[in-house]
Amino acid sequence: MSAPPLPEVPRERRSYPKGVARRQEILDRAIEVFAKRGAQRTSLRAIAQEVGVTHGALTHYFGSLEELLVAVYHESELRLDGDAPAGSEVTPAEMMRVSAEENREIPGMIQLYSTLVATALEDGHSAAQEFATQRFARLREELARRVRHLQSVGRIRTDVDPGLVAALTIAASDGLQSQWLLDETVDHEGALAMLDRLFANPSN
Amino acid sequence: MSAPPLPEVPRERRSYPKGVARRQEILDRAIEVFAKRGAQRTSLRAIAQEVGVTHGALTHYFGSLEELLVAVYHESELRLDGDAPAGSEVTPAEMMRVSAEENREIPGMIQLYSTLVATALEDGHSAAQEFATQRFARLREELARRVRHLQSVGRIRTDVDPGLVAALTIAASDGLQSQWLLDETVDHEGALAMLDRLFANPSN
Repeated sequence: MSAPPLPEVPRERRSYPKGVARRQEILDRAIEVFAKRGAQRTSLRAIAQEVGVTHGALTHYFGSLEELLVAVYHESELRLDGDAPAGSEVTPAEMMRVSAEENREIPGMIQLYSTLVATALEDGHSAAQEFATQRFARLREELARRVRHLQSVGRIRTDVDPGLVAALTIAASDGLQSQWLLDETVDHEGALAMLDRLFANPSN
Repeated sequence: MSAPPLPEVPRERRSYPKGVARRQEILDRAIEVFAKRGAQRTSLRAIAQEVGVTHGALTHYFGSLEELLVAVYHESELRLDGDAPAGSEVTPAEMMRVSAEENREIPGMIQLYSTLVATALEDGHSAAQEFATQRFARLREELARRVRHLQSVGRIRTDVDPGLVAALTIAASDGLQSQWLLDETVDHEGALAMLDRLFANPSN
């Protein structure tokens, strides 16, 4: 007696979990490759080779090198976010300092980030542009909310605009990271700690 | 009677001024092209075409696209430097604000700058790396000297390290410029003015 036929499942639904798993596998491997190699501009074919998939599969799952770069950075950021200091009493500069400390373990990711931002500033790179614009907007929003809270509890001086503090802190951290990558004597942490002291409520 | 023979001039010296003039001509034209087009990653051949020289001539005078990019930025910076506020009483944040204001007239140059820094952070790009490393070092040195002077005349608070103030101000300005290019509502000037107030000697 033969087994009863399996219920009919549409082809797309049936192959979906496998497609997701395969995409994740490629992404995991790409993250490893980028963490090791930085983000030297290179061909999609060369990366595909290093990741160990065909050019066709990479194009199929990510569309373009730019979109793979965005996915790699996004995924790495999600993984790091788990370690970010979450307490609402943590200042914006301290948040950026901790995140920079984590990034320093994987210089390839700092290079990848700076390549994505530079690519976003060029015309006609919509994936990188959308990524960078949204990331900056989200981060400014998050830090500004934090500043307003810390002003209300008397930790941050009230004569500074929360939105400007947020934009400035992100900018300072990004810029210091670039300077540090080119010259390790640049004191990223020290400069952010100084910024923290300047923003602190002087009557404390 | 024939004219006396002209004194012998070595071929290299004789052709030198013409080579310099031709190089300058290409550079001038490339600056125009970049100021209009930004720094989209494109082939040397395509830029050569737009500049109106052969691929061979471009390679001959600049070596590589990366070296042409460095030369274009360097030359543009020299031209802008003439307009920079030179007085020793001008604060670092104010200097960066004025320079950013000038750059805003030519968005292509901001894009070119950010591409050069991102390229410098990748491995194996020695021309961009040398350019960015030296530019940051020179600018930090210059701003730190300015901070020490302004501390000595009571304009800047003395409890901040001049080197950290310099690195932080450059970083903030660079990062804010990137954010502004992606979202024009980011107040680059306002954030630098806030930084200026924070660094000011509170007893003034």
